Amino acid sequence: MHKIITIGREFGSGGRELGKRLAEQLGCAYYDQEIIAEIAARTELSESYVRQIIERKPPFSYPIHIGRSFQPMTNYHASQSQTIYKEQFQLIRELAAQSDCVIVGRCADYILREQRPFRIFVYADMDAKLARCRAKAPEQEALTDRQLQQEIRRVDKERAQYYDFCTDKKWGARENYDLCINTTNVEIKQVARLLAKMLEE
Amino acid sequence: MHKIITIGREFGSGGRELGKRLAEQLGCAYYDQEIIAEIAARTELSESYVRQIIERKPPFSYPIHIGRSFQPMTNYHASQSQTIYKEQFQLIRELAAQSDCVIVGRCADYILREQRPFRIFVYADMDAKLARCRAKAPEQEALTDRQLQQEIRRVDKERAQYYDFCTDKKWGARENYDLCINTTNVEIKQVARLLAKMLEE
Repeated sequence: MHKIITIGREFGSGGRELGKRLAEQLGCAYYDQEIIAEIAARTELSESYVRQIIERKPPFSYPIHIGRSFQPMTNYHASQSQTIYKEQFQLIRELAAQSDCVIVGRCADYILREQRPFRIFVYADMDAKLARCRAKAPEQEALTDRQLQQEIRRVDKERAQYYDFCTDKKWGARENYDLCINTTNVEIKQVARLLAKMLEE
Repeated sequence: MHKIITIGREFGSGGRELGKRLAEQLGCAYYDQEIIAEIAARTELSESYVRQIIERKPPFSYPIHIGRSFQPMTNYHASQSQTIYKEQFQLIRELAAQSDCVIVGRCADYILREQRPFRIFVYADMDAKLARCRAKAPEQEALTDRQLQQEIRRVDKERAQYYDFCTDKKWGARENYDLCINTTNVEIKQVARLLAKMLEE
């Protein structure tokens, strides 16, 4: 069977970098944003719309309109969401069936549970996440530490909601992963190298 | 500075075996039950009494008697508990100052926090823990799976209470550890070897 590695991660913990480096080390495919682009192509929806549905708005958070005039709109959105979710599930299964791969986010650990992927969760202390965000995204310079902290919490809350919605499990709870890695005091590069060594055995 | 590794673990997850094997691989000291024996020797209390205080009864769970006749007994117990806790804190610091070591349980991650130990937490699915308990302790043969499950939960609840009492943090919560390892689908022997490789770098 192929080697499939899934990575869940707190915002700013370096999970994405770890995934990329790990895929490089293992010489296998890496999927993250590519999934959104491919779904957009398949559904003929814009990437930004697909991203919004997948990353930011679990269906239950849509406003429910009782008045008749709003119904068609609500149904239209709900139907598009369903299409996007279905495409995502299908695409992730197709990708994992093709070759060894590292998939970041998108509930891939759950979607591929029958293939028994190696499930990693990456996290870090808030100070480390702040520092990483500052280093990676200079466009956030205008934000105070407090604002950036709020932003980190907001993104993680959305990830948790999305994960809980799709899987009925708790995002980040250790029992859903094979390995939980705290990146506060380590270099992602080194962790990737060691993990690759481990996974190659 | 010495290399200090602390291991917190769910009952039946193989954390103790991992600690032993890791210490063997690294060629360093291993402390677990030895700590209880040493405290018993230092305080001139019996090992079983020390074990009960350390492992099973955080002070807050002692019954509080208001009647006069019970007071001397309660005070006596409280004072012995304090002595034992103090000795344990002191002893763990002494051991860690002596040489590289692996310490299992006993809130060592918190007691040694200034030495920045590498903090591991070991856990597993309930079925894996049941199987491990059955394999390791044939004396529990008389217990049904349900009873053994209850016993596993009871021990973990006590560990959590003890940890929370000593540290004011949540036992098993990922933020208190550098690495959380799920032993459900792996061999402890192999994990120990890989971890040793990682920690030797």
